[in-house]
Amino acid sequence: MQIITTRNQITKRIARRTSASPVEKTVRTIIDRVKKFQDAELLALTERFDGVTIQTLQVSKQEILDAYQKVSSSLLQAMKDAKERIQRFHEQQKEESWRIEPEEGVYLGQQVRPLASAGIYIPGGKASYPSTVLMNAIPAKIAGVKRIVLTTPPQADGTVNAAVLVAADLCGVDEIYKVGGAQAIAALAYGTESIQPVLKITGPGNAYVACAKKLVFGDVSIDMIAGPSEVCIWTDEQSDLKFVAADLLAQAEHDEDATACCLVPSIQIAEALSTEVNRQLELMDRMDIAKKSIQTNGWIAVVESESEAIDIINELAPEHLEIMTANPENSLDDIENAGAIFLGAYSPEALGDYVAGPNHTLPTSGTAKFSSPLGVYDFVKKTSIIRYTENALEHVSDAIIELANTEQLTGHAQAIRVRT
Amino acid sequence: MQIITTRNQITKRIARRTSASPVEKTVRTIIDRVKKFQDAELLALTERFDGVTIQTLQVSKQEILDAYQKVSSSLLQAMKDAKERIQRFHEQQKEESWRIEPEEGVYLGQQVRPLASAGIYIPGGKASYPSTVLMNAIPAKIAGVKRIVLTTPPQADGTVNAAVLVAADLCGVDEIYKVGGAQAIAALAYGTESIQPVLKITGPGNAYVACAKKLVFGDVSIDMIAGPSEVCIWTDEQSDLKFVAADLLAQAEHDEDATACCLVPSIQIAEALSTEVNRQLELMDRMDIAKKSIQTNGWIAVVESESEAIDIINELAPEHLEIMTANPENSLDDIENAGAIFLGAYSPEALGDYVAGPNHTLPTSGTAKFSSPLGVYDFVKKTSIIRYTENALEHVSDAIIELANTEQLTGHAQAIRVRT
Repeated sequence: MQIITTRNQITKRIARRTSASPVEKTVRTIIDRVKKFQDAELLALTERFDGVTIQTLQVSKQEILDAYQKVSSSLLQAMKDAKERIQRFHEQQKEESWRIEPEEGVYLGQQVRPLASAGIYIPGGKASYPSTVLMNAIPAKIAGVKRIVLTTPPQADGTVNAAVLVAADLCGVDEIYKVGGAQAIAALAYGTESIQPVLKITGPGNAYVACAKKLVFGDVSIDMIAGPSEVCIWTDEQSDLKFVAADLLAQAEHDEDATACCLVPSIQIAEALSTEVNRQLELMDRMDIAKKSIQTNGWIAVVESESEAIDIINELAPEHLEIMTANPENSLDDIENAGAIFLGAYSPEALGDYVAGPNHTLPTSGTAKFSSPLGVYDFVKKTSIIRYTENALEHVSDAIIELANTEQLTGHAQAIRVRT
Repeated sequence: MQIITTRNQITKRIARRTSASPVEKTVRTIIDRVKKFQDAELLALTERFDGVTIQTLQVSKQEILDAYQKVSSSLLQAMKDAKERIQRFHEQQKEESWRIEPEEGVYLGQQVRPLASAGIYIPGGKASYPSTVLMNAIPAKIAGVKRIVLTTPPQADGTVNAAVLVAADLCGVDEIYKVGGAQAIAALAYGTESIQPVLKITGPGNAYVACAKKLVFGDVSIDMIAGPSEVCIWTDEQSDLKFVAADLLAQAEHDEDATACCLVPSIQIAEALSTEVNRQLELMDRMDIAKKSIQTNGWIAVVESESEAIDIINELAPEHLEIMTANPENSLDDIENAGAIFLGAYSPEALGDYVAGPNHTLPTSGTAKFSSPLGVYDFVKKTSIIRYTENALEHVSDAIIELANTEQLTGHAQAIRVRT
């Protein structure tokens, strides 16, 4: 891992964060073709990109029942445990509609309603991500979304990973389709013969999926445009470097583009940590990926003071922040920007990835400056309610007419005058 | 206005809603040039598009003081009245951070924080929109945004409209710049020598502004991509057609692309309403615009029943819905999709545009199916907080390891094992 000691170098590292490669032209073509040829195009692209010929896009009830047979009882229990904890946290995010009568004859309100439908994209290929199913479907369900659709690319044998199917079924997902990539996003946004369109698309994906989500944004809602995953770990003299190194490497194993970085109080600790990272790295199943990530994107910064560390964190706005200092709660109020903050030595990111409760879909690449974790609030929308009595309208009519005339919208003024 | 009586025709009208014209190539060039040439490009484009040569982009303190002299005391009072009512409504939208301890040793929370900066775009040219300043700046201020920036194109004499300046000053806007169009959005997103970038851009604009907002989305947050404004008015036999016609025309005067439509219980009422619209139309200052809008986009649908009306409204998902039936509250629970709902004969859209309290920035073109009015929630972001004790982590470690192994992320499992 690169060890850096000046603020200028740190700023350069933050600016150097990797971003998705440009694939827009290809993605535009895919979206246009899915709009035009619909199911036929989905099947053709599945053959081309996933290397498998399927006849039917929708996963059948029988396939879901079969999936339960393929999942071990310990995995089923783990998914149920995770589901319960995720539900418990997200229940807190439910918003109530409200009405107020701030003065006589004035009735105002905000109605909160679930979106009618949502589509969840789950990456496939070699790995399976049942945890991502839980993290996307549970908030949608708590929000009250009536139709939850999931799409994921089929495996080489034409089936969908059993753990993904069981997770989806546990969460009450209503429809599951075997389609991945930009073509899945196009189908969710615009519909095909088999797949009715949805109002919002969430879930992670590769550069093609991210680009497709950006392109369909506006026609439908999307959660965010996710970049590579990141962790920043803030340590002090008492931090256990074995823990720190393990967490950095857990981040690095995600993806070669992932970023694992660490703030340490001295060059000695930086060097010791680097050694520990290299030691643990050699023992990893996913050593090749983690090594590439650590070599390309990993860094350890020596910081002078707590306030310097906080400045760097706020500039970085990391997706995941682990504070492993002696009194992690102390600095919490000063952290302005982070997707999720993990406090203390026994709150590793892996805990939050699976079972802690909060969502693991978090803003990346500094977007924590303006974005939030995925939540129940992503699956509801609000409507304002306005009712004034004749008297109450009369009371504000001069102000309306004055403002309308200023804006040269005299027809607006007339709509008041006709009533008073 | 076109009178339509079959459901099929209504569905076609809904589908025919106008959308912004494609200007993407031009907008991309503008954004690229602003990134490269910064202030110089902003000044050059202001000369080209706004026809005025200015030396300094930022509005000075003196210009703001001068603006107060140009605004009448009645307009100042109207803006203050409006501000107070808008503030009162939006105060209700403030969200509190929360912490929970759902089981021993498990501490979770959600921290709500304001965005550090926000940029408001206000259209200029011939008209001025102080109400839009209030509607954008007030929720940002209530959220706690520390740096609120406003951009608006200069008038022919190089100044900014006095009402806009006073509204901005009343709301505590921190910086105001004389720049409009896609170039203003590029400057807000990426910064220039004079304009520091912001984290979120809100506010209405023409097709160029809307396209620029879509293109910078992801690098910064945006509120929504606004289409032409719309109203749908639901009437019954007792509705006063004078009121209905005035409200339809107030909508139509906005813009030739605006949509004014109405649901009526009989063909007789449809014809009477059409006559009343034509009568009032002739008396309008903005007759030309309103006539074009009514002729191109206006429609009156004869509906058979209350449930048919509700179905149409939910399919349309209008930006503004006025319910002028005898008992408007009765149907409120069945309306799934609308930006704002105005109840009763004395709650015209013009009331909500200026002083009612709720925001007038509302989802258009059917996006009320998945979007909300602009609100305080647009100017905050959330961070999840996770703290587990050693015992609490131990308690969930099996589930984490099981899930991590399923996802082939064995480094994640190791980050737990190293601690237990």
